[in-house]
Amino acid sequence: MELLLTVARDRPGTLSAQIQSQIRDCVRDGSLHAGTPVPSTRDLARQLGVSRKVVVDAYAQLAAESYLITRQGAQPRIADGPFPNAAATPRPAAARPDRFDFMPARPDVSSFPRAAWARCLRDAVAEITVADLGYGDPFGTGAMRDALAGHLGRVRGVVTVPDRIVVTNGYLQGLGLICRALAARGARRIACEDPGGVDESRIAARAGLEVVRVPVDALGLRVDLLAAAHVDAVILTPAHQHPTGVVLAPERRTALISLLRATGAVAVEDDYDAEYRYDRSPVGALQGLDPEHVVYAGTVSKILAPALRLGWMVLPPSLVDAVREEEHGTARVEQLAFAHFLRRGDLDRHLRRMRTRYRRRRDTMIAALAESFPQATVRGIAAGLHVTVELPRTADEAAVAAAARALGIALATMGDYSTRADRPPTLILGYSQMTESRLREGVRELAAATRTGT
Amino acid sequence: MELLLTVARDRPGTLSAQIQSQIRDCVRDGSLHAGTPVPSTRDLARQLGVSRKVVVDAYAQLAAESYLITRQGAQPRIADGPFPNAAATPRPAAARPDRFDFMPARPDVSSFPRAAWARCLRDAVAEITVADLGYGDPFGTGAMRDALAGHLGRVRGVVTVPDRIVVTNGYLQGLGLICRALAARGARRIACEDPGGVDESRIAARAGLEVVRVPVDALGLRVDLLAAAHVDAVILTPAHQHPTGVVLAPERRTALISLLRATGAVAVEDDYDAEYRYDRSPVGALQGLDPEHVVYAGTVSKILAPALRLGWMVLPPSLVDAVREEEHGTARVEQLAFAHFLRRGDLDRHLRRMRTRYRRRRDTMIAALAESFPQATVRGIAAGLHVTVELPRTADEAAVAAAARALGIALATMGDYSTRADRPPTLILGYSQMTESRLREGVRELAAATRTGT
Repeated sequence: MELLLTVARDRPGTLSAQIQSQIRDCVRDGSLHAGTPVPSTRDLARQLGVSRKVVVDAYAQLAAESYLITRQGAQPRIADGPFPNAAATPRPAAARPDRFDFMPARPDVSSFPRAAWARCLRDAVAEITVADLGYGDPFGTGAMRDALAGHLGRVRGVVTVPDRIVVTNGYLQGLGLICRALAARGARRIACEDPGGVDESRIAARAGLEVVRVPVDALGLRVDLLAAAHVDAVILTPAHQHPTGVVLAPERRTALISLLRATGAVAVEDDYDAEYRYDRSPVGALQGLDPEHVVYAGTVSKILAPALRLGWMVLPPSLVDAVREEEHGTARVEQLAFAHFLRRGDLDRHLRRMRTRYRRRRDTMIAALAESFPQATVRGIAAGLHVTVELPRTADEAAVAAAARALGIALATMGDYSTRADRPPTLILGYSQMTESRLREGVRELAAATRTGT
Repeated sequence: MELLLTVARDRPGTLSAQIQSQIRDCVRDGSLHAGTPVPSTRDLARQLGVSRKVVVDAYAQLAAESYLITRQGAQPRIADGPFPNAAATPRPAAARPDRFDFMPARPDVSSFPRAAWARCLRDAVAEITVADLGYGDPFGTGAMRDALAGHLGRVRGVVTVPDRIVVTNGYLQGLGLICRALAARGARRIACEDPGGVDESRIAARAGLEVVRVPVDALGLRVDLLAAAHVDAVILTPAHQHPTGVVLAPERRTALISLLRATGAVAVEDDYDAEYRYDRSPVGALQGLDPEHVVYAGTVSKILAPALRLGWMVLPPSLVDAVREEEHGTARVEQLAFAHFLRRGDLDRHLRRMRTRYRRRRDTMIAALAESFPQATVRGIAAGLHVTVELPRTADEAAVAAAARALGIALATMGDYSTRADRPPTLILGYSQMTESRLREGVRELAAATRTGT
């Protein structure tokens, strides 16, 4: 245990006084916080090259002044004193937890497979090579990229080789890389879906790109309007449009690929919660149709937990070098752990379990909405972790949301995803976070709030 | 185990033929790679809602065509066939490993404390809260930031509260955040040290900042020249200048802080390998002198392993919001593991062990250089993981380096860090990666290469 102190015989004051005044200053200026352990007297004496008595005297004085807590046999610690100690500032009280959490796009992390993940981490730490412990390839470990190439091909129809995969620190960090790489090679305009996530637009704008919002209809992104927007790139969610839940229709896919080929533009495919589908056939990734013009992006945030900050992108060859300029690497023990998780079938098992659970919650949600919101139109039910609830035209979306929030009900509205005025009032309700009985209760309370808000 | 396939009775071909042709297509287009496992016949039949016989027939046919390997009791796999299978492309052969590795700025990761780290990870996975498994605070977990605030105050004299700490995905990712945040609030020019790292300049330039290089002399950064450069920010390594090894002198520190206060500029303090010092008193962080104008940046890359991609910055209050706009969070299980690693004293123990080891290697290095390079001036020996070796003026730095590399000796030269012409030929030699006997051998071979190169 170290402590940043220096003493010298040619300085004013005894050695013991020098130690005392330096520790006092550190406590007062906030660099030594209440509760911080400090070295034992023996240890500090050795570090400073002074006799142990010098340090014993200094600590005794500091304890007497209540800067320090010293107890026989215990590590000395900085006391919890009346100093203007920055760390002692009370944290602002955490916001009151929501009574009902209908926020969309969040997995139920209370089911995180702790035991399986701990086993994968343990094996990863034991097996990681010395080369992988160093700086290594910023695009990721070979094991992770090999496992991903196999998995994404098998489950999503992604066409790739491991060398074109970059492991990222989650989807949004990857999106930042792509946007900066596109800007660096001359891209100026990028399209985002409307409605669509706000983070995407913000990240693209920070990378210096001009953001154009292109409407989504019942068949997905309006590719005709995209063509008219003359963009260099487009970010979209073909498997399950966020937040409407529509699947990009086959004819739109074909039109989009033709457009990309004709203009040289790049599509960034956010394969957002493609893993959760309940009633419909799986739809392969857009990337499989044209790996030269589509960046495929995925993440563990929806399938395991956002805390892992682990994502990936499959790049067209033309973007590999530009992305390499921007990427500094992602935690490698976790990459190896995830490669184990894939290879052992742990992910398939976890997803199977979660799909069953989410399907039950969805069914409960639909039944509860039918009962409490008979005039509403519920959409986006075939897949994902939320539904959209279109209220009668007379309802005031913002007023309903405000009334719900006042009752401790967290939810999103279409207004959080779109600036368009020509749309019906719509709530976006996630069902992944609550048990079935809580869902039923929450929907009933929400219906009450809605009556207040209309 | 899933496979992305769809079959329908109203499509052309029998159900079995549909399965066969889709798998064949996936193997041919490279989305199903050699060796990839596919679902068992029972499993796929269930997924597709067809009889098991349909899948058994399809697999038998595919096995006969050598697309698939099926063996009683084993998971079926895609065969290693003669298809234009992208994944089968042989990887480019890895570069021949260096015979002697004198590359600077790399820790000896072969001593990574695997058992202690595995223990910390295990406890982190067991203890992580449901809130921390979700999206959480992108600045990091409370446990990590509390532990860091205590540690940095105690060991480096950093003055902070946990709320001003952002956990980053390593130092360079953090530097990108800061540069973009500075640019977003109007900064235009940033200074870097000369000599100094090339990554810093590149990252600052990519963020849209104009980079000015300011010389370093025997007292550290030339603050008088920095003042004349009229910059909005400066990146520097005060504890142990990289790569010269000089410590920023007290009068330069004072002058720098005065300059920052007068101009409102921000200093980014890269507290680069401050943990490794052998003969001199510790020098506290510059940040402690003025937490309002200095960003403190640290990383585990030199003290544990680059693979963890874990770093931190202590921000002035004025930059907290701007950085928040850019940050998407860092792996949280690892943050909790590192908080345990700090609190249990594992880091102090590891550093004590490594300092002893590195000091011995440094002593060996100095002795070997004195013997084999009697005309050279060896500097930067008091701290860090490398020394600088100033050759006689007649030597040709680039030729020496080329001759060494031809012999399988990896090293750096001052030319890798500086574009100035008015400097003596200098080698930068790391001693952290080799045992003492290998170091002696390597220095002897390097001397031979130097005679060739001069």
